[in-house]
Amino acid sequence: MDAMHDSATPFAAFKSRWQPAIEHALADLAAPSGAQERLAEAMRYSLLSQGKRIRPLLVLAAADTCGGNVERAIHAACALEMAHVSSLILDDLPAMDDDDTRRGKLANHKVYGEATAILASNALLARAFELLAEYSVGAVLCKELAAALGAAGMCGGQSDDIQGGVATFDDLMKMHAGKTGALIRASVRIGAILSDAEAQKIESLSQYGDAIGLAFQITDDLLDREVEKEKVTFPSLLGVEKSKEIAGQKTDEALRSLESFGPKAEVLRDLTHAILARHS
Amino acid sequence: MDAMHDSATPFAAFKSRWQPAIEHALADLAAPSGAQERLAEAMRYSLLSQGKRIRPLLVLAAADTCGGNVERAIHAACALEMAHVSSLILDDLPAMDDDDTRRGKLANHKVYGEATAILASNALLARAFELLAEYSVGAVLCKELAAALGAAGMCGGQSDDIQGGVATFDDLMKMHAGKTGALIRASVRIGAILSDAEAQKIESLSQYGDAIGLAFQITDDLLDREVEKEKVTFPSLLGVEKSKEIAGQKTDEALRSLESFGPKAEVLRDLTHAILARHS
Repeated sequence: MDAMHDSATPFAAFKSRWQPAIEHALADLAAPSGAQERLAEAMRYSLLSQGKRIRPLLVLAAADTCGGNVERAIHAACALEMAHVSSLILDDLPAMDDDDTRRGKLANHKVYGEATAILASNALLARAFELLAEYSVGAVLCKELAAALGAAGMCGGQSDDIQGGVATFDDLMKMHAGKTGALIRASVRIGAILSDAEAQKIESLSQYGDAIGLAFQITDDLLDREVEKEKVTFPSLLGVEKSKEIAGQKTDEALRSLESFGPKAEVLRDLTHAILARHS
Repeated sequence: MDAMHDSATPFAAFKSRWQPAIEHALADLAAPSGAQERLAEAMRYSLLSQGKRIRPLLVLAAADTCGGNVERAIHAACALEMAHVSSLILDDLPAMDDDDTRRGKLANHKVYGEATAILASNALLARAFELLAEYSVGAVLCKELAAALGAAGMCGGQSDDIQGGVATFDDLMKMHAGKTGALIRASVRIGAILSDAEAQKIESLSQYGDAIGLAFQITDDLLDREVEKEKVTFPSLLGVEKSKEIAGQKTDEALRSLESFGPKAEVLRDLTHAILARHS
């Protein structure tokens, strides 16, 4: 969404300010000391490719919105990106989506082979937990990530997708809440927890995460509707106009959930507009 | 090793006492509430199959040896078994060892398909962290598990194996220290940490874990030497007699590292003898 957004806006300014720190930390933290060399190379290959870094930026923006120390949240931000990239490596496998390319280059398994790709995915996931566990509130953060990734979260949503029984609007909402929503929700929650935010604020940001996760997905479906003809998507199920309407509703929901934060939430507020702007 | 061991011995008695509690907790905890149904079924399929439950028993025996509450360590014990089973599901995939059976029944991917098997493996891993994170020392426990599983642990050892460059005794030791040793070491460390053991005791148990991990592996290699003809193993590299000698040395090392615990370590001591007894 960066390319479509004026660099003078709060989100673009925040991104310019913090993305270099994220990229630097990802390169630094990608593999633990003593990592097997070839495996570390495979981990870096996927982790350090061009990504939008939405999840780590959400961690930092949520920390900032709650008045926390953004710098201190960088390792957690990296953990969320590692968990995300871990899932992308698996998504591309022949047994899953069977994609040969990702983020403009060959998929991990096309370069390193399936076995190493699976191990790189696993090792990135372990590394994500290792980084979160180093915080004083590490147990809470690990629990958030674990719940988001597990059978009631991302893996559950992916399993819904594979099973192919998604037929109604509610099915589609539930599937995406797991597939992409859970990790986006965890990103903002982890940022808030690291800023010692009170329960009410964490809850507001959870609602924000749920709403932008869906808005983001609907917008993706609208942008991809030429290539996703075989899948059940929001536009295939509801039509283009109704899908845009729901994306708009989710955007409004996201903005409402930020109201109590006042001007502190300008980055998250602007990010919300940026998501919707992608398909207008 | 159970079948070869007299039920009157300390380890057999400990196993009879605690294995039913482990099995019960595994069945109870396998999937989180709200888990996607088919995925939860695939997780249970592998987790609740007949296993030796060595890692969970090590967690409990280490907790007991350090004077802790064994009951309280059961969730952590389950987490270690989940992490282990998670790795077995991946090991059996066509891209890895390509095994059709595991623990006397069809491999997970032969029943549920590769995509669901991969997700079940991932979801079990997430569940393991979720359970560990619920302890008051959850951050420390998650860090132990993450380090054991990651690129400098189990995934690293598996990557060594896949790369195929294992040629010397040192290579073989390093590979197995990662592939199987790291999780066994983490099992006893986590049991000790849950019992608030002092650093010296945790260190002694780490040495114990490293030693039995290798003794166990060498014994496995000796038992499997008819089927493992293509792989570099301890007997293929060193011969049968030398391999038995090293297994004996590792057993002695394991017993020495338990000395400071006195009679409290009788279960772990007996387990050590039981490992070596498998090939005598």
